[in-house]
Amino acid sequence: MGKVRVDCFSISVDGFGAGPNQTLENPLGERGQELHTWFFPTKAIQKAVFGKDGGADGVDNGFAERSFENVGAWILGRNMFGPVRGDWLDDNWKGWWGDAPPYHCDVYVLTHYPRASFSLSDTTFHFVTDGPDAALKRAKASAGAKDVRIGGGASTIRQYLQAGQIEDMHLAVSPVLLGRGEHLLHGIDLNALGFKARMFSGEGATHYMISKW
Amino acid sequence: MGKVRVDCFSISVDGFGAGPNQTLENPLGERGQELHTWFFPTKAIQKAVFGKDGGADGVDNGFAERSFENVGAWILGRNMFGPVRGDWLDDNWKGWWGDAPPYHCDVYVLTHYPRASFSLSDTTFHFVTDGPDAALKRAKASAGAKDVRIGGGASTIRQYLQAGQIEDMHLAVSPVLLGRGEHLLHGIDLNALGFKARMFSGEGATHYMISKW
Repeated sequence: MGKVRVDCFSISVDGFGAGPNQTLENPLGERGQELHTWFFPTKAIQKAVFGKDGGADGVDNGFAERSFENVGAWILGRNMFGPVRGDWLDDNWKGWWGDAPPYHCDVYVLTHYPRASFSLSDTTFHFVTDGPDAALKRAKASAGAKDVRIGGGASTIRQYLQAGQIEDMHLAVSPVLLGRGEHLLHGIDLNALGFKARMFSGEGATHYMISKW
Repeated sequence: MGKVRVDCFSISVDGFGAGPNQTLENPLGERGQELHTWFFPTKAIQKAVFGKDGGADGVDNGFAERSFENVGAWILGRNMFGPVRGDWLDDNWKGWWGDAPPYHCDVYVLTHYPRASFSLSDTTFHFVTDGPDAALKRAKASAGAKDVRIGGGASTIRQYLQAGQIEDMHLAVSPVLLGRGEHLLHGIDLNALGFKARMFSGEGATHYMISKW
């Protein structure tokens, strides 16, 4: 069996995984995009997300690279899949990633509104309406010996953390202060859950490997 | 006029400035001492606190060194001065630091219980019962052109932050997870207060200079 893990989840120094006032135009909330300044310029992300050669190498890139390794299925909160709220008005919205999403496997999207699965290139999106446990069960079955990656957002990670279902978590702390927004860890006792942290200094963020060992 | 600043205040990855269940024997709370693993071995602290030559050099030591520069007066919460709660039973407790405290100036201790000032070597401790504003006024007068350093703990820093009185703050994030305890920033909007952060990677902690610029 693979692990259930979080990778490359970026938070601010004051602990927010997204800024306040998320809107259609600003899905990460006010200044939320500043959390990812370390991430997008890396070689791994330039290749995986934008299909481009080149980009920054180094510690940050190392974490971006390993985030794609051995992933057999993903789980995303609905807001990470798209800005549409409530009922799916039609099936036109197919995610933020164009015709070739960077997943290359089954992606389970948590939602309260049913929608048929569809594929883009080698990624298939499934819409799970019977809750996070059901999504995790399906994702594990699909991943087989590989890992299930919980993509986010903050509230999705919080749910799986509180349920004790996450085994490894890589957080990237970016040197920004958001002040308000979606806090990742407030009220969650990572020590009581058995986690310890190791620090790795990157060029644009500080990385923490949070595991049970 | 000098500045009002915080230096070398250590917090965990999950944002706690002290662990849970503070006691006489464990003034930093459970595992709170792990926050300071980067700090005590440095050359600057070995010299200033323990009077010893030698110790670790590097980025962490640089921050420890600059924390003593240009400080004209200190403000401490009562728990940083000692473990005694309630009325001062007698005047026997003279702080954690022995006969030669590392302050070398006036130190204003916030307390609800009056006590006469006293000196140890070139440090004089004053006990301020009329609140943080009064303590800051006296500390500024004593510091003159130099800075007032708010030593801590978390609740003292929170009070001065919320009052908009802190101008510069150096936080050191140690790679530990405390889970519970005294959270430094919960409910405080550093962005709205006008602060930005710069990151400096140390050997045992990651340092953030949090200032208005």
